[in-house]
Amino acid sequence: MSRTSVTMKLQLSSSTPVNIQTKLPILGLGRYHLRYSPKLPSNFQSTSISNSHQTPNPILLHPPVNQSVAAIVFGEGSDSRLYPLTKRRSEGAIPIAANYRLIDAVVSNCINSNINKIYALTQFNSTSLNSHLSRAYSGAGLGKEGFVEVIAAYQSPEDQDWFQGTADAIRRCLWVLEEYPVAEFLVLPGHHLYKMDYQKLIEFHRNRKSDVTIVASNDITVRDQDSGFGLLKINTENQVIQYTLKSDREHINYSVAETLTRFNDTSYNNVPSMGIYLINRATMVNLLNKHFRKANDFESEVIRGAISLGMKVQAYLFEGYWEDMRSIEAFYQANMECIKKSDMGYNFYDRDSPVYTMPRYLPPTIISDAVITDSVIGDGCILNRCKIKGTVIGMRTKVADGAIVEDSVIMGSDIYQIEDGHESGIAVEEKGIGIPIGIGENTQIRKAIVDKNARIGKNVKIINRDNVEEGGREADGYIISGGIMVILRSAEIPDDSIL
Amino acid sequence: MSRTSVTMKLQLSSSTPVNIQTKLPILGLGRYHLRYSPKLPSNFQSTSISNSHQTPNPILLHPPVNQSVAAIVFGEGSDSRLYPLTKRRSEGAIPIAANYRLIDAVVSNCINSNINKIYALTQFNSTSLNSHLSRAYSGAGLGKEGFVEVIAAYQSPEDQDWFQGTADAIRRCLWVLEEYPVAEFLVLPGHHLYKMDYQKLIEFHRNRKSDVTIVASNDITVRDQDSGFGLLKINTENQVIQYTLKSDREHINYSVAETLTRFNDTSYNNVPSMGIYLINRATMVNLLNKHFRKANDFESEVIRGAISLGMKVQAYLFEGYWEDMRSIEAFYQANMECIKKSDMGYNFYDRDSPVYTMPRYLPPTIISDAVITDSVIGDGCILNRCKIKGTVIGMRTKVADGAIVEDSVIMGSDIYQIEDGHESGIAVEEKGIGIPIGIGENTQIRKAIVDKNARIGKNVKIINRDNVEEGGREADGYIISGGIMVILRSAEIPDDSIL
Amino acid sequence: MSRTSVTMKLQLSSSTPVNIQTKLPILGLGRYHLRYSPKLPSNFQSTSISNSHQTPNPILLHPPVNQSVAAIVFGEGSDSRLYPLTKRRSEGAIPIAANYRLIDAVVSNCINSNINKIYALTQFNSTSLNSHLSRAYSGAGLGKEGFVEVIAAYQSPEDQDWFQGTADAIRRCLWVLEEYPVAEFLVLPGHHLYKMDYQKLIEFHRNRKSDVTIVASNDITVRDQDSGFGLLKINTENQVIQYTLKSDREHINYSVAETLTRFNDTSYNNVPSMGIYLINRATMVNLLNKHFRKANDFESEVIRGAISLGMKVQAYLFEGYWEDMRSIEAFYQANMECIKKSDMGYNFYDRDSPVYTMPRYLPPTIISDAVITDSVIGDGCILNRCKIKGTVIGMRTKVADGAIVEDSVIMGSDIYQIEDGHESGIAVEEKGIGIPIGIGENTQIRKAIVDKNARIGKNVKIINRDNVEEGGREADGYIISGGIMVILRSAEIPDDSIL
Amino acid sequence: MSRTSVTMKLQLSSSTPVNIQTKLPILGLGRYHLRYSPKLPSNFQSTSISNSHQTPNPILLHPPVNQSVAAIVFGEGSDSRLYPLTKRRSEGAIPIAANYRLIDAVVSNCINSNINKIYALTQFNSTSLNSHLSRAYSGAGLGKEGFVEVIAAYQSPEDQDWFQGTADAIRRCLWVLEEYPVAEFLVLPGHHLYKMDYQKLIEFHRNRKSDVTIVASNDITVRDQDSGFGLLKINTENQVIQYTLKSDREHINYSVAETLTRFNDTSYNNVPSMGIYLINRATMVNLLNKHFRKANDFESEVIRGAISLGMKVQAYLFEGYWEDMRSIEAFYQANMECIKKSDMGYNFYDRDSPVYTMPRYLPPTIISDAVITDSVIGDGCILNRCKIKGTVIGMRTKVADGAIVEDSVIMGSDIYQIEDGHESGIAVEEKGIGIPIGIGENTQIRKAIVDKNARIGKNVKIINRDNVEEGGREADGYIISGGIMVILRSAEIPDDSIL
Repeated sequence: MSRTSVTMKLQLSSSTPVNIQTKLPILGLGRYHLRYSPKLPSNFQSTSISNSHQTPNPILLHPPVNQSVAAIVFGEGSDSRLYPLTKRRSEGAIPIAANYRLIDAVVSNCINSNINKIYALTQFNSTSLNSHLSRAYSGAGLGKEGFVEVIAAYQSPEDQDWFQGTADAIRRCLWVLEEYPVAEFLVLPGHHLYKMDYQKLIEFHRNRKSDVTIVASNDITVRDQDSGFGLLKINTENQVIQYTLKSDREHINYSVAETLTRFNDTSYNNVPSMGIYLINRATMVNLLNKHFRKANDFESEVIRGAISLGMKVQAYLFEGYWEDMRSIEAFYQANMECIKKSDMGYNFYDRDSPVYTMPRYLPPTIISDAVITDSVIGDGCILNRCKIKGTVIGMRTKVADGAIVEDSVIMGSDIYQIEDGHESGIAVEEKGIGIPIGIGENTQIRKAIVDKNARIGKNVKIINRDNVEEGGREADGYIISGGIMVILRSAEIPDDSIL
Repeated sequence: MSRTSVTMKLQLSSSTPVNIQTKLPILGLGRYHLRYSPKLPSNFQSTSISNSHQTPNPILLHPPVNQSVAAIVFGEGSDSRLYPLTKRRSEGAIPIAANYRLIDAVVSNCINSNINKIYALTQFNSTSLNSHLSRAYSGAGLGKEGFVEVIAAYQSPEDQDWFQGTADAIRRCLWVLEEYPVAEFLVLPGHHLYKMDYQKLIEFHRNRKSDVTIVASNDITVRDQDSGFGLLKINTENQVIQYTLKSDREHINYSVAETLTRFNDTSYNNVPSMGIYLINRATMVNLLNKHFRKANDFESEVIRGAISLGMKVQAYLFEGYWEDMRSIEAFYQANMECIKKSDMGYNFYDRDSPVYTMPRYLPPTIISDAVITDSVIGDGCILNRCKIKGTVIGMRTKVADGAIVEDSVIMGSDIYQIEDGHESGIAVEEKGIGIPIGIGENTQIRKAIVDKNARIGKNVKIINRDNVEEGGREADGYIISGGIMVILRSAEIPDDSIL
Repeated sequence: MSRTSVTMKLQLSSSTPVNIQTKLPILGLGRYHLRYSPKLPSNFQSTSISNSHQTPNPILLHPPVNQSVAAIVFGEGSDSRLYPLTKRRSEGAIPIAANYRLIDAVVSNCINSNINKIYALTQFNSTSLNSHLSRAYSGAGLGKEGFVEVIAAYQSPEDQDWFQGTADAIRRCLWVLEEYPVAEFLVLPGHHLYKMDYQKLIEFHRNRKSDVTIVASNDITVRDQDSGFGLLKINTENQVIQYTLKSDREHINYSVAETLTRFNDTSYNNVPSMGIYLINRATMVNLLNKHFRKANDFESEVIRGAISLGMKVQAYLFEGYWEDMRSIEAFYQANMECIKKSDMGYNFYDRDSPVYTMPRYLPPTIISDAVITDSVIGDGCILNRCKIKGTVIGMRTKVADGAIVEDSVIMGSDIYQIEDGHESGIAVEEKGIGIPIGIGENTQIRKAIVDKNARIGKNVKIINRDNVEEGGREADGYIISGGIMVILRSAEIPDDSIL
Repeated sequence: MSRTSVTMKLQLSSSTPVNIQTKLPILGLGRYHLRYSPKLPSNFQSTSISNSHQTPNPILLHPPVNQSVAAIVFGEGSDSRLYPLTKRRSEGAIPIAANYRLIDAVVSNCINSNINKIYALTQFNSTSLNSHLSRAYSGAGLGKEGFVEVIAAYQSPEDQDWFQGTADAIRRCLWVLEEYPVAEFLVLPGHHLYKMDYQKLIEFHRNRKSDVTIVASNDITVRDQDSGFGLLKINTENQVIQYTLKSDREHINYSVAETLTRFNDTSYNNVPSMGIYLINRATMVNLLNKHFRKANDFESEVIRGAISLGMKVQAYLFEGYWEDMRSIEAFYQANMECIKKSDMGYNFYDRDSPVYTMPRYLPPTIISDAVITDSVIGDGCILNRCKIKGTVIGMRTKVADGAIVEDSVIMGSDIYQIEDGHESGIAVEEKGIGIPIGIGENTQIRKAIVDKNARIGKNVKIINRDNVEEGGREADGYIISGGIMVILRSAEIPDDSIL
């Protein structure tokens, strides 16, 4: 029955009525979808302080960041529309850009910002994420005092329920989070794709002597369908005066630009929160255990509450590429942008802010005869006589003779399948009798996402034949979302199928 | 429904009618308490095959163990009476013998047996255990292909409940467990203290072409209060004919010896199961997903079922020290035995089968003036003018001038407290105003277990003044179990207290 | 003066008169060049025992291999003709097959054979090798008790000279090698490319109760130009009766086949040694410190001596691909064979015997418009509008528009060069003013080896214009060896050059 | 010229035929011995800038230290009088304070200062040091981009000699050192014991726009016997005007205080160099490859030369404990001070600047009946009925019944010896027939250093019976230096010996 109340609470804070995820208590931060739009005339910039052009020599952070800040990363966003990619994994564990998992972006931001105490809180389909984080970041890589520690939801004598939301999750883990004498907590959604030097945020926070600093976007467009994000009303000093949850019905059709002009009092601006918070340790403890002991959601309840209490809550304005990976389409676009390697998108090749991930020992990709255009090829692929165009090819992908893959995201395989079929490394449910993992001969794939370990037969056409926008048959191994074909993990598509 | 039956079963097997754990779905294996007793005349040995004296050159295991066997370790035992040591951690994470955690014994057995694919399934108070396993075994130590992977209970679209028992836990994780093409699964409770070369078990299993092999004790005594363990009726070929759950009321007062004589048919023996199983991969999948899709408990439902189905179930008889850490008293005794370093107990110093644990970088123990008798001292302690006798002193323990500690287990501290009190590394709840972590001046402790980060004041006497067998006040920071004083984790015992 | 005597000693043991390496005290093992030739009728097989078809269940190795055998790997071969690839690195550190270093083959053999105590002895250009071994294998990967320990030549009060040969190197390191109580040492040249399960060798050695076992090839052809390898005369029991150094002038033109027929006494065969030895620990100590205290070369002096002393020296016959990487041509061929992924060559993709190397975190290869045929592509390359055929493309290679690369080995780059030229990660000597690292626009490369960090300009033709067999100008950044163009590490080839 | 004087000094100290080290080309930095003396009235402080009291918020280092500074650590000091502790190892590898090696102090300084690119240059007895650094710091601990890379002296086609001095060593390794685009090199002797935040040095260097910054001691006393250190004449701006090598005979009896008063021109002070330099990358390259191509010694030739050339060379004044471990006595004293844990000495227990070392998995120390006073006990010792006073007991030390150890440094053992003597883990030379590793029954040890793996028999007295100041018989396993008994590594002292 406590389960029931949970569901209710969550539905309260979420305007979307029923989907498969919303039945679960959710851990999500950043329930909104914003996109970087550099053309937007930033007409409010004059009255607020932007942080994109730092002085070359800012003040030294004291105490040093690597001793005084701990990051709390949420492994999954709430209200995700990434199903079926999240059928067996949480959002943070979704493979992206051939060699990475989504959460690597945020963890790499931490590492590149000298933050080396990272707690990842998870409970939904957490196994893949835990495994990835453990293999990618444990033991090595974060310095002798650093770690990425996964805190999975757990039962205890006091509390036998799952985490009931982001605030509840942090509250129940406080005893762990307080292990090190940090000065601030940095709260991060794990499913965002962006690069940020958090040290500048920390410097801003300390110089302003804030209780809470919220990262807000200086330069974004809100898509029509977006809802459920927080709008911050800030004064010329970047102090947050008011928090409004954008999911309220009357706001649903505003673009940010519109929203901003509505408040034409020049001394105030409205900026969307990015769901990233820096909070003083004592403030965190007081908010969760004293002021809002029953709050489940961190932003809409705790942060909003902190503002009402008159705490010093500031907005730190961020400029740059930022993508909240909240829909199949957004995920698809982010992959497509990684191909372009433009300055606009997320840069996986930047030496100064490298993206970390699991170390690999794979053999090189072997290509017998391929024409490859505008594509990205992961490690250890085996490409035969094929054409690949505008596509992300993930690790260990096999593409057979005659195949043509266009405008797609192929996630690859976890293993090399042994040819004679005697290999048993695949779960029973995944064992295809005749169809090997990979893409079969003379098969055509266009505008599709092919999840891991899928077995695509010969002469298959995955082309969204009927030009469906939303649909698909999960039992047959695929779903269509936003016009993008999504082949499920370990799905088996028989020879000669036309989808 | 199945939920209810579990609870019932557990209450059956637990004489204490209501305690806090039994309300939870449990993960426990090996619900029984056996002790090694070398004097026991093993009168049934003649008719069954013992495995203690291996030929020096046994058959090579083919395929090699490190590629063909995966271990499934359960982080917590069910029906534990180790509370309050398990208040904030699962059983496997309890510190033991100054430098170790309980689960290190089983994981080290695996490593020393060349098993390097280890899955640890957890859900109850799992944070400490996950953290320990991740820091101790991830990244390094298990070879390029090895790992200790923690699988925490998780929610998924198909199943939003916690694990409902050991069988349910394995079933829900099968898709992960099947990642590697292993031939057998080795199922292990994580809270047992013993040394075993599992390679001999595997060899026995393969030579016999068994479906399931159960490890049974060849040489143990069952304590009076024990209940809830399985008794295996075996023939002279070590084939298991019948499985009886010892928790059935009519059996409750038997010792094993008595039990054995009851079956005076010379061609059968009865041996207690140790809760350790080796199972062929396909057998596991069939049992869980085909024959017993609803079973929650692995031993009493699935294994018993396999016997009824007429599968080839064999018993592998084990000799040697073995302790099921199921009570405060058993835990206390195991620590006391590690001091003696006798051949009888568990040997932490054996070069041939080392016990692994988290690597440490602590400074050496510094002693200003101590008389130390029959004790074990962990890394990085600070001992002033004190007397220590028959005691296990855990890592970073501070003992002040004039203190006397006897026959006790001091678990130590997670951090070095900075003297001036400005340190903030301790959770708010743990912050003692005046009393520092450690044992204060002129304090006396006798026959006690002092959990981590406890703050014992000056002139305190922890001596079980009233000679209580069971009792204590948790609110005051202690509990008495079996006459042993247990000071809670982070408890604060004021100056001049007499307990 | 002591230098002079060194040189003399070396010239004594080496028949080749003067080349650049021979001035140095050398560490080489396996001074011969053999090639796998599967068509060779193995007419002597009937009279000797072959080891390729092991029984599926051989005897368990006792004591276990991972505790009882230590490998001694030599980082460099003597008498190498791999210059200029060895100008800045030893042979073992030469990049091969896009993602690997040559020594990875032997170290991976050890790991796959459960040998986890590996000592690598080096002194010639050892920095790259040490760095690779340390990053690839230290800390992680070899189990808690395993390591790859580099022993660089060092000065000590007793001995201020460099290692004077393989025997001297082992002798001087014996005090380190004896740290662990191993039963046997496995002596391995580090520059061979082959797969071998050393456990079978160890089993053979132990079953025969040998003092020394030498691995000999069962199935090879000796090239005409080869010299300096040892020929083992064995009886039908595989006992080695006699050792002949093939460098003796009168033998120089024999092929093995011829050699074998010369000895037409059916009870003896002659097989070439592969330079791999398994030696009992005590035997090793006695041979080096008692019997042959002055010997510098391990095979021609110590092993030959052991035979004369009447020790039990056996030959273990090996079948399978094996390549002694002793010439530019052999190195080039080995790379070409890795492209074919045939059953004949060395298999980098075998799941059962993986090849390990340094873990990498590189972004995926990005391709804008390439036609790629029969090639292997390493991690993190950037390929523009280009044609690649029959080529190994190493990590981080950049290929510009219009480039055509055929039948070549491109080793790639250690870093990503930042476009604007402000990057300073390259050593001063390597700083090209205008030419970036990689292959420039419209450049053609055919049958070439391009070493790391080379800067090939635009419209360059590296085609061996004059069809030279041996030649080249090192000052201009290239050398020709066996008709193969070799572009030096960090060389700069100006625009419009035709080589 | 400066070259000559240096060479002379070295030849002077090497003209004594009896010293075995001096025949070797040496790598030492910091050829002087200074001691921290807090009582010294720092009368020159008024006219120069001290750096001990940093502002709490100094300027942020830009670019960040972890990307822009590489440390070059020398594994051995020249002109060492630590023999016989250096018989089998270089100075940096000497065990200190029970759990550490000497070089851990400097490497930990680097890590705590965010410097994670560390090159260790070695050639003399380098095996132990390489092994320690590789196991302690490779793979893990320094972040994804960090490393401790050992560069052992090596032969190459261009240069077949050993390193000829510190300048020569850096010059020959420049091609490696320049791998990363760092802005400055930090040159560090590896055998000093001190704590310093190098970030403050870097900040000072960058703010002053120096070419070279030399760390000088603000607060030290020079012992009478010291010689060979550099004296810096600095003006009130801390600019270095002149460099004088203190080894010149006429200076030999000055204390620093005297020296300082000699220069009573108030605008200049003389401060002793600590042998620590921060140098701009381009400056380093120019000095070594352009201005002083033949220089072998870094300080007396290159740095002195930079001053003469008019480069901007500054002195950074350091206050705090600092010990140049150049004599047995200094080493002994440093160990004694670590026992006191006073504020004066080196603090191994400081949470804010932890000392890192090799991770350990040892069992706890077991004590059967010991009285321990003012001592430090390493991990995994086995202490029987014994008395220990004022002593450092290293890892795995065994002390038998009745032993009394006072005012000593016991380094411990590398292994646990198996009781029955069948163990063979010890090098042949180390095999004692009857005497086990450790300290025998009823043995007394006073004011001694017992090196690793020594086997001290029963009823031995190591008490410097004849009260010798310098002497000892190496063949009998001991040496006396400064009145301190030094028992050699693996020495065997027979029962009933009185030394």
